[in-house]
Amino acid sequence: MGSYLALIYGVIIIAALVIIGLIKFIFAQDKGDEKMQQISDAIKEGAMAFLNRQYKTIALLALIVAIIIIVANYYGHLSEGTGTALSFAWRIGFAFITGALCSALSGYIGMYIAVNSNVRVAAGAKSGLNRALQIALKGGAVTGLAVTALSLFGVATLFLAYGGLSGLSGQEALIKEAPSLLVGFGFGASFVALFAQLGGGIYTKAADVGADLVGKVEAGIPEDDPRNPAVIADLVGDNVGDCAGRGADLFESTAAENIGAMILGVGLYPVFGWRGILFPLVAGAIGIISSIIGIYFVNTKDESKDPMIALNKGYFVTTIVNLIALFFAVKIMLSGHLPDGSEVNYWLLYGAVVTGVVLSYIFVFLTDYYTSVNKRPVQEIAKASTTGAATNIITGISVGMESTALPVIFISAAIFIAYKLGELALPHIGTSGLYGTAIATMGMLSTTAYILAMDTFGPITDNAGGITEMSGAPESVRHVTDRLDACGNTTKALTKGYAVGSAALATFLLFSAYLDEVKKILGKPIDSWFAVDIGKPEVFIGAFIGAMIVYLFSSTAIRAVGRAAQYVILEVRRQFREIPGIMEGTAKPDYAKTVDIVTKGALKEMVIPGLIVVVTPILVGVILGKEAAAAFLMIGTISGVILALFLNNGGGAWDNAKKFIELGNYGGKKSEAHKAGVVGDTVGDPFKDTAGPSLHVLIKLISTITLVFVALFR
Amino acid sequence: MGSYLALIYGVIIIAALVIIGLIKFIFAQDKGDEKMQQISDAIKEGAMAFLNRQYKTIALLALIVAIIIIVANYYGHLSEGTGTALSFAWRIGFAFITGALCSALSGYIGMYIAVNSNVRVAAGAKSGLNRALQIALKGGAVTGLAVTALSLFGVATLFLAYGGLSGLSGQEALIKEAPSLLVGFGFGASFVALFAQLGGGIYTKAADVGADLVGKVEAGIPEDDPRNPAVIADLVGDNVGDCAGRGADLFESTAAENIGAMILGVGLYPVFGWRGILFPLVAGAIGIISSIIGIYFVNTKDESKDPMIALNKGYFVTTIVNLIALFFAVKIMLSGHLPDGSEVNYWLLYGAVVTGVVLSYIFVFLTDYYTSVNKRPVQEIAKASTTGAATNIITGISVGMESTALPVIFISAAIFIAYKLGELALPHIGTSGLYGTAIATMGMLSTTAYILAMDTFGPITDNAGGITEMSGAPESVRHVTDRLDACGNTTKALTKGYAVGSAALATFLLFSAYLDEVKKILGKPIDSWFAVDIGKPEVFIGAFIGAMIVYLFSSTAIRAVGRAAQYVILEVRRQFREIPGIMEGTAKPDYAKTVDIVTKGALKEMVIPGLIVVVTPILVGVILGKEAAAAFLMIGTISGVILALFLNNGGGAWDNAKKFIELGNYGGKKSEAHKAGVVGDTVGDPFKDTAGPSLHVLIKLISTITLVFVALFR
Repeated sequence: MGSYLALIYGVIIIAALVIIGLIKFIFAQDKGDEKMQQISDAIKEGAMAFLNRQYKTIALLALIVAIIIIVANYYGHLSEGTGTALSFAWRIGFAFITGALCSALSGYIGMYIAVNSNVRVAAGAKSGLNRALQIALKGGAVTGLAVTALSLFGVATLFLAYGGLSGLSGQEALIKEAPSLLVGFGFGASFVALFAQLGGGIYTKAADVGADLVGKVEAGIPEDDPRNPAVIADLVGDNVGDCAGRGADLFESTAAENIGAMILGVGLYPVFGWRGILFPLVAGAIGIISSIIGIYFVNTKDESKDPMIALNKGYFVTTIVNLIALFFAVKIMLSGHLPDGSEVNYWLLYGAVVTGVVLSYIFVFLTDYYTSVNKRPVQEIAKASTTGAATNIITGISVGMESTALPVIFISAAIFIAYKLGELALPHIGTSGLYGTAIATMGMLSTTAYILAMDTFGPITDNAGGITEMSGAPESVRHVTDRLDACGNTTKALTKGYAVGSAALATFLLFSAYLDEVKKILGKPIDSWFAVDIGKPEVFIGAFIGAMIVYLFSSTAIRAVGRAAQYVILEVRRQFREIPGIMEGTAKPDYAKTVDIVTKGALKEMVIPGLIVVVTPILVGVILGKEAAAAFLMIGTISGVILALFLNNGGGAWDNAKKFIELGNYGGKKSEAHKAGVVGDTVGDPFKDTAGPSLHVLIKLISTITLVFVALFR
Repeated sequence: MGSYLALIYGVIIIAALVIIGLIKFIFAQDKGDEKMQQISDAIKEGAMAFLNRQYKTIALLALIVAIIIIVANYYGHLSEGTGTALSFAWRIGFAFITGALCSALSGYIGMYIAVNSNVRVAAGAKSGLNRALQIALKGGAVTGLAVTALSLFGVATLFLAYGGLSGLSGQEALIKEAPSLLVGFGFGASFVALFAQLGGGIYTKAADVGADLVGKVEAGIPEDDPRNPAVIADLVGDNVGDCAGRGADLFESTAAENIGAMILGVGLYPVFGWRGILFPLVAGAIGIISSIIGIYFVNTKDESKDPMIALNKGYFVTTIVNLIALFFAVKIMLSGHLPDGSEVNYWLLYGAVVTGVVLSYIFVFLTDYYTSVNKRPVQEIAKASTTGAATNIITGISVGMESTALPVIFISAAIFIAYKLGELALPHIGTSGLYGTAIATMGMLSTTAYILAMDTFGPITDNAGGITEMSGAPESVRHVTDRLDACGNTTKALTKGYAVGSAALATFLLFSAYLDEVKKILGKPIDSWFAVDIGKPEVFIGAFIGAMIVYLFSSTAIRAVGRAAQYVILEVRRQFREIPGIMEGTAKPDYAKTVDIVTKGALKEMVIPGLIVVVTPILVGVILGKEAAAAFLMIGTISGVILALFLNNGGGAWDNAKKFIELGNYGGKKSEAHKAGVVGDTVGDPFKDTAGPSLHVLIKLISTITLVFVALFR
């Protein structure tokens, strides 16, 4: 047992050392000329200012929620005695705060490195593609490793502190209770993730839309032009939306999934003992090591090759190392004797791991199909643009809706296969099927650190492109950053597919964890079935509200972008009017003022959609009861996954349809088709960068929130 | 008992006589000048040709389905003996065919009268608003009465033939079995309704978009200009989409609701006897009489008043008569003794009726709020149009998404209240709560005939406007038809709200009917609870696919419009090119050829989306089992209602945002804002007239299809 803990903490220490090494490597790079540094400093300042202010707002909200959690759980558990209730309430509240802090910290680290890497990538591009690629990916890797290592550290340490350590030394009851206490950690993480993603998503698109509408359309200056007062805000937005947002999102995914799988491991205690509960943590540690190995495999000797090939090589290496290491982990940890005395067939459980890994590849492939310029859907939208903006929009919506079908079928198949493998491996044990799906989810999430590195690569290269553009670097340097930027757009789209896929797979797990918790409260054995009767009106209503809430949330999130963009538009217009010489390049616009205004706007606008998501599940549970909350949870989750697929893929397809036209098709830039393409791209922006990614977090938040408040439900 | 049957059939005969009287009245009106008649004849020819060809296609599909139903039910019931299985299979198959025929017939009658009324409304406009209003509403009333009377006749007669008559004479077992045999009728009706709405919806929008894109945008000629080769197809489209489509939709609603309520009435046999089973039919008869009275109250003496006031007066009268008559029906029929000997409190059951009536008013109000030019949402979209098409679309989508929230909350409240009233009135009887919601649905649907009259009023006045425009009638006449047309646009939007509201309320009923049927097959008592365990993977997958299917269906329906519109565009361009003198007005375009091409296109494109809806529920049931089919049904229904609200309200809001700009706001016609408004309107067209209304039918179709095929499910 000690060796497993040594492994877990050893990996955490290795990750920390690698992170320090990467940071040293990045800071040792050339910072570029003075002009580049000036721009980079402005971005850095804006991004950090936003993050600081955002965290203040979130901290205030989190504090209120923490108090509510503690009070609610105290009264909810009073029947078990004052002492137990108090201890329970404090522990779950403390877990919430820890989760929130860890999530915030991982967002902070990722952002800090990203805004320091961007200028170095721009400078590195002078020495060629490979150098720039290395810096950008290593910058991204800091986020990937920080997020996953912090998640592992938080979950493992809380588990040990909440009885896991005594449990491992033989006190069976304690180890069985510990995982349930961790849900507070998951809720804290998802709470911060929701607001981080929402605020960041609103910021990035408000700045983008505002900069484009006044800069490109009204003033007629190109993108990333230093005369545009919103140009720095736009570059800041790339960081706070894609970088901090997605980091918090996947921090939450890995934490929630680990906790959910550990809770299920409790049900298998008779077969695997504490090994079944510890397995998820070991799997997480393996994923970190594999990702580190994968990251060091990324390099491109042939400068003319697509950098995507190098990134894919790293992903492939990570997957292979993972598959091998997880096999041994399954073989060693998930072996044991069934109640009838026969051996557990670990090959079946390993099959579930493979199912998850295959699903992650399928999701990446499907996202690529629906959003790539080389494929039918995007080209169909581009063709429809020739008859105007209306047909572009209609086709884009149709493509987005269509793109929900295959992912749902493959998720369904994966859940079914993993469930049946779990049942076959552990027959006649209540939660064995669910444990199968949990293992599949671990397989899918084992590459998270690498995926996140690729994802953060996106905003870093995007920023690097902006910096070279604004600093007037030579054409050859811009060519390098342009290629990396195009590659970053692809990785961002793919990781969004990965994020929603893993969220979808994890939902079934989290939903089942909720049912388990309800059983425990009702005093039913954990391996009994708790059926939700959808013939009852309360349950039907809970389901109805669950399906509706994702629309209401998306509506408010999309509208928030529009409103925040208005602030930007007014400010940019004001600067053009009041500061003479901006357009002639003789006077500098007041970038900081614009950054400040988007910051205030985004933070103000994130509160309403965020509160809708936090308050509704509690209201449903308190007013309509536990079963209604279960239906709310299930239908909200399912509808959320599908709406997120629609928004992400539709938005991505519109984006690339415009790019496809810009490549010279249907008349190229400045054609009528291109104008229609720009409309589609603008519509898609809040879809794919604000509402869609926030829905991933919403899905997991409603799971953890119902778990934390279940004691209050009727 | 005889007196109730006399009432039901008496009302059917009265309805038939009133229909004959209305037809005579319409045909006695002035047919207008020769030019008007020419145009009207062309519309008539095109509409009837489409309907004939469409029905041929549907008949072929229906025949195949009928055979499958008979074979499937024969094998599904074989365990009960060959004789029983054969008798069951034939009866359910015959019911399917009858339902399909009745639905087709009601669509046919409505269309026939509509295409004969339009020119008479145009001619009547010469003698003033009141005359034209009367003709248009009475034309619509023929559809309303034909649809509801045929539905009542079909359900009542099949019920009596399938054992109801012997049952009423004392054979208790027979009367309890009869309602379940009627589900075939509901399925037949919804099967035809789906294809009628889909084909009509594709036709109308393909013609509309095609005519606009080439005529208005490319050739620069105004709407309804006789030089446009697609202008007749566009006018035909109004009839086949709005008239035949919605007629079939509400035929299906009333039939399915009646059947569902009768099945629930069986569960209350110990209290109400056969009265509880017959009550839904009596309520239907009352609705027809009230609507007839309401229709004769519509007239406007003051020609300067908004004709909407006169239509609302009729609606109000219908509702009041209904409320009074239903009170006596409830008091007389739904009285009896509870098992403990106490009297049933019929006031509580009457409260459920009132709940349904109130809900229908709320739905009409909410639809009005989200789609009216005078309200915040539409004006917000209009304002967003000033910054271009992209912001118009983003705001419209946001409004559409937001508009799902309040309807869901009110439907939920209505279901909850009606359910609790049912339980309070009939304590400790299994299906009493559901019967409460069934009664509420009856309350809501009791005004169907009048609502349908208002709805069909829309395409008639739309056509009348087109005829006056094309025939070059004087300005004063056009002013009258313009006012009626504007009024028709409002009624069309409101009835869409009514249709989706009643579909949503009926779904809970139909879903429960499915659960009852499953219980019967499993040999459980009908008043036991059958819980669907959403923790099982099959059930989760069924739910997932249910939520996805409504997106896939909408995607294919929207894309079908795009494709069919392409055929129109190519044909119109060809005519402009090959027929010299069209633009100068010296040569006539070949209208019939365009009509023929849209017809073929729409019929071809309706098959794929239609088949998706028919095949998927059967596959889910056969492969994943009864419980998965229940989850599919519930989540498909809920998601379908919400997506339909989004599509209908979004589309309606875009339409009126354009109109708001045309009224002179934000620069009025030809401003940049107006261009953006036109884009939004075009995007909304397939939303609100193809995909949205087809989803209403889809919702009910998946209920009836699972009911008919449940014997086959695993």
